[in-house]
Amino acid sequence: MTELTDQISQAMEQAARAFESYKNVPGKLRAAFLRQIGDEINLLGDELIHTVMNETNLPEGRVRGEKNRTTGQLNKFADLLEDGSWVEATIDTGDPVRSPIPKPDLRKLLIPVGPVVVFGAGNFPLAFSATGGDTASALAGGNPVVVKGHPAHPKTSQLVAKAIKKALQKFALPEGVFELIQDSGHKSGQLLVQHPQTKAVGFTGSQQGGMALVKLASQRPEPIPVFAEMGSVNPVVILPEALKDNHTAIAEKLVASVNLGAGQFCTNPGLIITTKRKGFESFIEEIGKQVKAAPGARMFSDQVFQNYQLNSEKVFSFSEVSSVEARTETPATGEVGPAVGLVKAADFIAQPNLHEEVFGPFSLVVACDTDEQLAEVVQALKGQLTITIQATPDELANRKELISALLGKCGRLLFNGVPTGVEVCAAMQHGGPFPASSDSRFTSVGVSAIKRFVRPVSYQDFPQDLLPEELKDENPLNIWRLVNNEWTKEQI
Amino acid sequence: MTELTDQISQAMEQAARAFESYKNVPGKLRAAFLRQIGDEINLLGDELIHTVMNETNLPEGRVRGEKNRTTGQLNKFADLLEDGSWVEATIDTGDPVRSPIPKPDLRKLLIPVGPVVVFGAGNFPLAFSATGGDTASALAGGNPVVVKGHPAHPKTSQLVAKAIKKALQKFALPEGVFELIQDSGHKSGQLLVQHPQTKAVGFTGSQQGGMALVKLASQRPEPIPVFAEMGSVNPVVILPEALKDNHTAIAEKLVASVNLGAGQFCTNPGLIITTKRKGFESFIEEIGKQVKAAPGARMFSDQVFQNYQLNSEKVFSFSEVSSVEARTETPATGEVGPAVGLVKAADFIAQPNLHEEVFGPFSLVVACDTDEQLAEVVQALKGQLTITIQATPDELANRKELISALLGKCGRLLFNGVPTGVEVCAAMQHGGPFPASSDSRFTSVGVSAIKRFVRPVSYQDFPQDLLPEELKDENPLNIWRLVNNEWTKEQI
Repeated sequence: MTELTDQISQAMEQAARAFESYKNVPGKLRAAFLRQIGDEINLLGDELIHTVMNETNLPEGRVRGEKNRTTGQLNKFADLLEDGSWVEATIDTGDPVRSPIPKPDLRKLLIPVGPVVVFGAGNFPLAFSATGGDTASALAGGNPVVVKGHPAHPKTSQLVAKAIKKALQKFALPEGVFELIQDSGHKSGQLLVQHPQTKAVGFTGSQQGGMALVKLASQRPEPIPVFAEMGSVNPVVILPEALKDNHTAIAEKLVASVNLGAGQFCTNPGLIITTKRKGFESFIEEIGKQVKAAPGARMFSDQVFQNYQLNSEKVFSFSEVSSVEARTETPATGEVGPAVGLVKAADFIAQPNLHEEVFGPFSLVVACDTDEQLAEVVQALKGQLTITIQATPDELANRKELISALLGKCGRLLFNGVPTGVEVCAAMQHGGPFPASSDSRFTSVGVSAIKRFVRPVSYQDFPQDLLPEELKDENPLNIWRLVNNEWTKEQI
Repeated sequence: MTELTDQISQAMEQAARAFESYKNVPGKLRAAFLRQIGDEINLLGDELIHTVMNETNLPEGRVRGEKNRTTGQLNKFADLLEDGSWVEATIDTGDPVRSPIPKPDLRKLLIPVGPVVVFGAGNFPLAFSATGGDTASALAGGNPVVVKGHPAHPKTSQLVAKAIKKALQKFALPEGVFELIQDSGHKSGQLLVQHPQTKAVGFTGSQQGGMALVKLASQRPEPIPVFAEMGSVNPVVILPEALKDNHTAIAEKLVASVNLGAGQFCTNPGLIITTKRKGFESFIEEIGKQVKAAPGARMFSDQVFQNYQLNSEKVFSFSEVSSVEARTETPATGEVGPAVGLVKAADFIAQPNLHEEVFGPFSLVVACDTDEQLAEVVQALKGQLTITIQATPDELANRKELISALLGKCGRLLFNGVPTGVEVCAAMQHGGPFPASSDSRFTSVGVSAIKRFVRPVSYQDFPQDLLPEELKDENPLNIWRLVNNEWTKEQI
């Protein structure tokens, strides 16, 4: 075995051993552990902030914001565990005299699946990396985590990993509950996904990367789920009345969203679909103005910058695509500004390459001649994380068919907003039909993300004192339970 | 294209078209449709009962029971839809003045995924076939269904399909909501799983069959989930005190469970694990007696009968396995009776072939020398649908580590019962860690089975009157909703 193979095998075996005790750690203790991780991250202070800034070119405000989001996420999962109702305790009491056969007593709850492998994301060095949403949700569910750190920010990952290990020590939890593997290549990721002790995988990144992991996992003797959030082009559909009345404001909002964080968001609005009605020319003009005025920024790695140049140039190389406006990059500083292209609906439908995500501050306006053509463009869309409708309430009310079609293509449908900015809450869905994510039934943002890493088990006719607290008659944790098909906090 | 390819392509395209309207049919109407299917099945009367009996060799009582289970399942899903709370409506209200950025209004619920392909199971010609649990849960969720009928009971499938089509007509629902494909080979199944319009697959059957479908699905350009329930050996662990005090009753109960329905259940107790303590010899003796006295029965197809003979003979061909007792088959009638083998724990652990399911009235007693050895046997077990513990409450109380280990291996843990008999209710989990099923996070029995065929979507800042009823402020359907992290039926 090579050194890397050894290291990974050791991490996964250690995680599997740690699982034997960590899975039985009560929710309230896991909550305290998650909060402690947040505290340890805060204690890293400016060292962490500056390390992230140095490694990713992100500005201080964004890094501090993302740090708060990261500790905020940990606290939200802690809240969830303290409340306790997330285990979906479901009880159907027995009936020993039921005819023709007695009815058993059945009690179900969610339990952890086992060691989870998490791939750190390049664009979120804190919120989707060593202790990001994937790690927080897997740990909250009772699973040890082995993180493959993103090569763009190794020092950041190292700092955060140390914080987690400190928190583990403070609660005398087994070391194997968390491990960080750093490797600039793909080998360690492959080995982690293939390891027999790995029970699930969380990934945020490109479609190519995500699908490679999905394929690897499906080839294992024991297939495991890979939750890959692979981004999307997040179409924004602008209806005629909104275009007529609000084109200036919409253009302004959209370009700001396209350019936010150098466009390095999976919810970047990469596609703007509208009809060539009144206001269209002014809308395009305004986009051009906004693009020209937008500030530039450096991307989080040279690799990402090169890919952005390559992919945006590829789009503009199609003769059907004209440039509304593109901020010239300054190779010396490596700064990028927004770029927006324009294409006719028929050409867009005919050219599959134009449906692909360009990761960075890029967007493509698709100009439709008629409402029917707009419907055809929608029909041609692939699965998306988000779709946004810019409309007046009145005109939207007449487009129920369009709403239904858009809903079928995405995980989150927005009205008159921008898709960037993903609220961490129970009602968030961050995951959409393929290829936006590998399993649209789950979210990678918000507390429901925990559902990816747990599975239900039923106890049948089990003695009261040996049932987990969540399922005991007296409901000692005072949680919401579905008892004989009614939600209640009452005891039985 | 061949005729079969044409037929399947037509069925799937028709399903996709039907989905466009069926997905928007209100829950209460879908409920009435499901009840109507049950009524139409009841109207088939004795013709259906006799057709099933002729095609499957199942006795009348069992067929009538299974018919009731089938209509009962449809009614339970109808209840679920009428109640409406199953969509997991989750609302986080907005806060436009939150600092530093406003909080959006987010509202999430479950929506259908699209056309589902269901494979009829041979051992449940009604309850897991054309309109069994998979079909009922997919239709309940709002998805069209295309069933690949099991070749062992084509006439039964045809009758039931007609009942469903009648129900569709009565409610003026599109024909494409249900289609039955019959084919004695594997080709149609492959084509159905590969068709681009197929969004999910439900399967109950062998590990070989299930894994073939999982592999096929993973090779599609758009991977789709395959929910394969692939059976298990359903270990029964007998602890010393229970063995000492209750061995006669336990032996009686177990052999009856092994022999129930000629052992043609995925929950057949195919493995009995105990220690050679007081009562062991008498337990084995009693098993022998019960086996000898047990009635014989014909299996549901010649193919299954031949496989059973082959697989049980294979187990007995291992020199380490002795026969406790095996009812001789009568080749003339093709009847089988129960057969039970005996093997030492060390030999069981060393021989992977002995861990495989023998589909039929077969079980293997694993004799352990010590509690430690029993723990090793448990450690060596693969994922199971069920595990049963036979014990006195007192001795169980001292075996928390064993309980934790068993829980980690199964989807349902029973105390002092037998695994056959799968209650259809909210708290049922029928699905376990691989290879018992392809995705342990879901169940194929009970109303939660609907969760396999739906996905969450969030509406962000959407106008009230365009939200689905489930998410409107006034909660017109009076369903349970998670509003700002509290379960409530109140309006907002």
